[in-house]
Amino acid sequence: MEPMEEEIEQKHTHGHAHTTAVLNRLSRAIGHLESVKRMVENGRDCSDVLIQIAAVRGALNSISRVILKDHMEHCIVHAIEEGDQEALEELNLVIDKLL
Amino acid sequence: MEPMEEEIEQKHTHGHAHTTAVLNRLSRAIGHLESVKRMVENGRDCSDVLIQIAAVRGALNSISRVILKDHMEHCIVHAIEEGDQEALEELNLVIDKLL
Repeated sequence: MEPMEEEIEQKHTHGHAHTTAVLNRLSRAIGHLESVKRMVENGRDCSDVLIQIAAVRGALNSISRVILKDHMEHCIVHAIEEGDQEALEELNLVIDKLL
Repeated sequence: MEPMEEEIEQKHTHGHAHTTAVLNRLSRAIGHLESVKRMVENGRDCSDVLIQIAAVRGALNSISRVILKDHMEHCIVHAIEEGDQEALEELNLVIDKLL
């Protein structure tokens, strides 16, 4: 469901270069987490469960990097050109949460 | 890669104190990640998506802590009593992945 053209203009959203890749990776992370849940249900070894949770977390970090780079290349460049201070403040908040 | 039933018995598994809580938290994390996917599909702002991914990652860290503490209290204490060197080596591997 793509946002309408007007919304794209207002919220500096845009066709992201990596949207399909991000969606595929999110689907894989969801599937991975469902398999972790089955491992816990089946009483699998704690170590194995923890290693798989760490792998999902790594996948989420990787997805975050893709989105953040895309965001920097498109939204933030646009925000600076337009003097959109709010977008830059939001970026600071995001960096605080991510790192 | 699934261990057989006998192997599960051999591998110091047990009724974990927090299994139900862990399963509930995993279900919530899966639901959260599905909502993140919908956000990306709907073209929501990158910052909002990144903040929600960071929240899921935080939830996974929290789940890992619960499992690791449970693992330390039950499996590892048992492993030390039994002189199960393999379990202790696995713990080192898990710590490497988690931290």
